[in-house]
Amino acid sequence: MGSNSFGEIFRLTSFGESHGKAIGGIIDGCPAGISIDFDAIQLELDRRKPGQSKITTQRKEADRAVFLSGIFEGKTLGTPIAFEILNSDPKSKDYSHIKDSYRPSHADYTYDTKYGIRDYRGGGRSSARETIARVVAGAIAKQILIALGVETHAYVSSVGEIAMDVHHSQVDVSKIDDNIVRCPDEAKAEEMISYIDSIRKQGDTVGGVITGLAFNVPVGLGEPVFDKLHADLAKAMMGINAVKGFEYGGGFEMCKRRGSEVNDLFITTDEGVKTKSNHSGGIQGGISNGETIYFKVAFKPVATIMRDQISLNDKGEEVVVKGKGRHDPCVVPRAVAIVEAMTAMVLLDHYLRNKSTKL
Amino acid sequence: MGSNSFGEIFRLTSFGESHGKAIGGIIDGCPAGISIDFDAIQLELDRRKPGQSKITTQRKEADRAVFLSGIFEGKTLGTPIAFEILNSDPKSKDYSHIKDSYRPSHADYTYDTKYGIRDYRGGGRSSARETIARVVAGAIAKQILIALGVETHAYVSSVGEIAMDVHHSQVDVSKIDDNIVRCPDEAKAEEMISYIDSIRKQGDTVGGVITGLAFNVPVGLGEPVFDKLHADLAKAMMGINAVKGFEYGGGFEMCKRRGSEVNDLFITTDEGVKTKSNHSGGIQGGISNGETIYFKVAFKPVATIMRDQISLNDKGEEVVVKGKGRHDPCVVPRAVAIVEAMTAMVLLDHYLRNKSTKL
Amino acid sequence: MGSNSFGEIFRLTSFGESHGKAIGGIIDGCPAGISIDFDAIQLELDRRKPGQSKITTQRKEADRAVFLSGIFEGKTLGTPIAFEILNSDPKSKDYSHIKDSYRPSHADYTYDTKYGIRDYRGGGRSSARETIARVVAGAIAKQILIALGVETHAYVSSVGEIAMDVHHSQVDVSKIDDNIVRCPDEAKAEEMISYIDSIRKQGDTVGGVITGLAFNVPVGLGEPVFDKLHADLAKAMMGINAVKGFEYGGGFEMCKRRGSEVNDLFITTDEGVKTKSNHSGGIQGGISNGETIYFKVAFKPVATIMRDQISLNDKGEEVVVKGKGRHDPCVVPRAVAIVEAMTAMVLLDHYLRNKSTKL
Amino acid sequence: MGSNSFGEIFRLTSFGESHGKAIGGIIDGCPAGISIDFDAIQLELDRRKPGQSKITTQRKEADRAVFLSGIFEGKTLGTPIAFEILNSDPKSKDYSHIKDSYRPSHADYTYDTKYGIRDYRGGGRSSARETIARVVAGAIAKQILIALGVETHAYVSSVGEIAMDVHHSQVDVSKIDDNIVRCPDEAKAEEMISYIDSIRKQGDTVGGVITGLAFNVPVGLGEPVFDKLHADLAKAMMGINAVKGFEYGGGFEMCKRRGSEVNDLFITTDEGVKTKSNHSGGIQGGISNGETIYFKVAFKPVATIMRDQISLNDKGEEVVVKGKGRHDPCVVPRAVAIVEAMTAMVLLDHYLRNKSTKL
Repeated sequence: MGSNSFGEIFRLTSFGESHGKAIGGIIDGCPAGISIDFDAIQLELDRRKPGQSKITTQRKEADRAVFLSGIFEGKTLGTPIAFEILNSDPKSKDYSHIKDSYRPSHADYTYDTKYGIRDYRGGGRSSARETIARVVAGAIAKQILIALGVETHAYVSSVGEIAMDVHHSQVDVSKIDDNIVRCPDEAKAEEMISYIDSIRKQGDTVGGVITGLAFNVPVGLGEPVFDKLHADLAKAMMGINAVKGFEYGGGFEMCKRRGSEVNDLFITTDEGVKTKSNHSGGIQGGISNGETIYFKVAFKPVATIMRDQISLNDKGEEVVVKGKGRHDPCVVPRAVAIVEAMTAMVLLDHYLRNKSTKL
Repeated sequence: MGSNSFGEIFRLTSFGESHGKAIGGIIDGCPAGISIDFDAIQLELDRRKPGQSKITTQRKEADRAVFLSGIFEGKTLGTPIAFEILNSDPKSKDYSHIKDSYRPSHADYTYDTKYGIRDYRGGGRSSARETIARVVAGAIAKQILIALGVETHAYVSSVGEIAMDVHHSQVDVSKIDDNIVRCPDEAKAEEMISYIDSIRKQGDTVGGVITGLAFNVPVGLGEPVFDKLHADLAKAMMGINAVKGFEYGGGFEMCKRRGSEVNDLFITTDEGVKTKSNHSGGIQGGISNGETIYFKVAFKPVATIMRDQISLNDKGEEVVVKGKGRHDPCVVPRAVAIVEAMTAMVLLDHYLRNKSTKL
Repeated sequence: MGSNSFGEIFRLTSFGESHGKAIGGIIDGCPAGISIDFDAIQLELDRRKPGQSKITTQRKEADRAVFLSGIFEGKTLGTPIAFEILNSDPKSKDYSHIKDSYRPSHADYTYDTKYGIRDYRGGGRSSARETIARVVAGAIAKQILIALGVETHAYVSSVGEIAMDVHHSQVDVSKIDDNIVRCPDEAKAEEMISYIDSIRKQGDTVGGVITGLAFNVPVGLGEPVFDKLHADLAKAMMGINAVKGFEYGGGFEMCKRRGSEVNDLFITTDEGVKTKSNHSGGIQGGISNGETIYFKVAFKPVATIMRDQISLNDKGEEVVVKGKGRHDPCVVPRAVAIVEAMTAMVLLDHYLRNKSTKL
Repeated sequence: MGSNSFGEIFRLTSFGESHGKAIGGIIDGCPAGISIDFDAIQLELDRRKPGQSKITTQRKEADRAVFLSGIFEGKTLGTPIAFEILNSDPKSKDYSHIKDSYRPSHADYTYDTKYGIRDYRGGGRSSARETIARVVAGAIAKQILIALGVETHAYVSSVGEIAMDVHHSQVDVSKIDDNIVRCPDEAKAEEMISYIDSIRKQGDTVGGVITGLAFNVPVGLGEPVFDKLHADLAKAMMGINAVKGFEYGGGFEMCKRRGSEVNDLFITTDEGVKTKSNHSGGIQGGISNGETIYFKVAFKPVATIMRDQISLNDKGEEVVVKGKGRHDPCVVPRAVAIVEAMTAMVLLDHYLRNKSTKL
């Protein structure tokens, strides 16, 4: 089984608690002979790391990945790639107040009940700090996909009620990192930033939505019954902390419409078979059809707010949980790197799985 | 790997093409010594079967499950439970027109490209007829869950633009099967039925949304990183034919709001620890917290419409695809049984997985 | 997990009790577009089937495989291949005497304790009749391997104390099926047959050894740490009923010798890199090196003897277990087909797994 | 899949090359709330480590395990336990002579062909140094088993032609570590030690056999078809470097005998149901029956000898491979810890798997 593993062939097993010695993982099944661009990996970690701007948590972490195995003279060996990132700035004392208390809408109570033990410091294993391991593995997957001509992107499409108007097909993906909120619509980005900043000053938090994109995915990726390409994308995204919803292609909106309105007609073009519209979101019958894959991922507001909340301790007694620790007022700017990472892992894994479809 | 398997411990492997000899599956990992209620299984198959009402496809199938192994004198042996359902009413000739042509928004093109071969009759393996296997396995899971005190339900909450107003917590689940659309709001149900009927007469199709519910789930189910309980529910639902989106708890709407508005505060009650509100949807940190689990599943309109559509054949030439065969104008009434089945499988699997969390 | 599944990509899930309705399985992950030779499958089933000669059990079964899915117009679809073989000649009454009693060296006691329930008829799931499913899957794997140039063989190399003298490299594999004991050394075969026959007349049973061979295996199959090619072969063989030991290459004997005696020196030949000797058994570091793979599988005498034995019932009381039912005096003649089947499955699975080693 | 993972629930994923930064692993699925005895882990590492006596390799490594996650205040959290052991004494220069050459009976040639790249230093991933990860995971499994009343042991039963006469049932396991060869028969141990020493002086190597034991295994462990308890033990043992054979219970010898001679009769004792003899080796039908589990594991002589050998380089040209580096003249004294570790992992994994057999 392996509850802390993701992927069938290109398979990440992650480890680490927020205030433990390190966060890291092992990538098994990475093809041999691939040149690794370590700077590109660090770049993705930097996009995810805390303290990167005024609208993120102020925890300071260099988040530098150290590779322990699987790479020799800059190339993958086909053996497991192990890596670790030290936790250099834990302020564990900030968490002594929740040692025996359950923060509302956090995993404290469920962990305690499930395991009978809990590393309360910084949320332990339930902290989104775990996603570092995904970003490293995803950055490697992304490099391999790029070599195969496949591009993966993600951007913030809404924060609270502020939503981009631009359709995903019109987005200039090169602008995603031009601002700290990672929304490629400059005007909306400014609105989002000042909104998050005001929320932060109120000691509150807010949710948002990230749009994911994949270009030039070869036709044929995805297993058509349980492991449909979009089912694996859904699981990948829903496995990210704070995610409450996933839709791809026409999504929830499409379900209000008629077949005659939303069927995607096939046409022949210079590039081969294409569809006139793309309500299918690049996937038909669970298998990529060569069109752009697009989807939305909904993130709830962070549960930790800088306000007092009434809650319970582990004896069932009422307590006041204080708003302490360092937390993001809104996770989506940093989560962009995570959504991209998970997308890349799913696509590469299915690329490798597809190799045995025909002899 | 096993692309046609679902679940880690309670594990269904399904088989069958729409117009092949049979649809069926093997359930591995079902606990031993469980009394099986065969009528209850048949009841679920009847809820899913074609030809059950004027708003479903008119294909006639008895859909009776035959069990080949794993059950002895009415009880499970702990060995694999194999079952099969014969395909008794295939009208394969109805499909000769698409032998070489690709129906819009169907899996014909992607299957052909992925596999280089395709059973075109009735959509072959891409047909939703495969979900019979899931309903059988789900019906068994449901029985076991009931013995554990856990209840699973699903109902149609919207068809096209017609949506129930009643909040899921106010729904009387005993009324779900009182009408042929399986919406427990009688007035809305009538609207939906007459709308689907009119859509059918126009040779068109329409989408809808199903709400899933699980009551009395024990605290502690779900693996907190990649195999979060809601991530596995998402994968289960997104793996059902025609599904475009999944959300649980507060869902997409919650992502517009603030932490201070949607945090669920813990309280002590006679039944133990509870939360005042349930935006979390019964799952915190990927683990069930004992509150009601609820989620929405969005189904697109069926791609087969009774109208001519311009498309391509396998040589890339333009062809007209006629609207033929027997299809549902809207899948949600029959899909209720499938959503319930997948829910039950996910919950039972996680119940069994959780057994090894502590010694 | 899937306790009743074997293989990672080419994956058999088997089902069935000895006196249930059917034995069968689902093969998931078979590559698409392969032409299936049904006669060749039946031939393997005939080599395994009961009642084939005077030295096998007299249970009469046609053992004809019916395919339910996954094959269309004679070719594999890339979808699950389900098949079943009816149990047509169960004499379940023969087993009423062991309903509550434990046969010595059988699985009755362990099944009862593990599951709390047992299908006692013919040994239920613990019967070697389950291996039918393996023979079908193996026969398909064998066909695919032949198309890839790989040949798999097995033969009886000893029965009781009677052992072939001929080294495996000198064996004429075309002669294996020339006699009913499946030993390609004609003189020894006759000895073995008359010995088994005399043992049978005494109501006793005897063990034996099967040698397995694989020719022309491409260099590079096998995963070098836990899933070494020989480790997976070992698991495959040890999973066959009555097997007590496995060795490959130089085996146990080699462990008495010195490195300087048994190292295999590399040489260049017209066919490329070869080794002068082959103590390694065609596998180095868990990976095939292109030389002949050879191994031995030890089968104990069948536990059911036609004599009274003192045993216990499920209340712990002493009982006499009578020798009844129809059983083989020696399993190795029929097990040859099973050893070959498992060999073929392991090799094909590793062939497919190896496809993702390099991009 | 995960080629570098072992176990279904208690699951080790190992990483590391012999001369890379570190060797280590992640244990997923370890039950929560277990107190860890770090000294006991180190003790097992010390039993495996190089340089421990005159009859082992002289590479000097402290082999101290550092734990990075999954343990909090001395107890397991139920989250992944990651650990690493630094490679402190690699003498990589010793291996420059095989950068382009293939050592006889090593994995150099097969790795190069499979992966197209190879870390030649100290054998890279093919080095038995990888087994450190298994010893750590096995030491944890062993502790948990002891708490459950299960004991695992292993000892050297033969070296070259020198074999213990004492039956495993007469062995005093407390004496295993009394001498450096780990043979509990003092007289034979001295013979073995002086023989290995003489072999070492000749620059040669020799093979041997290890016997494994497990006492007090509860009845019911093992999955009866493919994942038989002995099949998983076989795979575990065959996956250890240099192993050529595995047998359990009566083994190869039993296959020469008659059913009437080797059937194990059930008897009732004060401790419940037992068998009079134990040719079954504590496992019937793939499931433990409560008797002592015993098996033998055959290790070939180490391939690296301190002599010149004629071989090939990667261009297929003849070269002389010099005997260099630091190697064991015989691996069995150090492999005792590895055999025990793998035994413990298999037993604990099946203990946890068995928890879901009944509701």
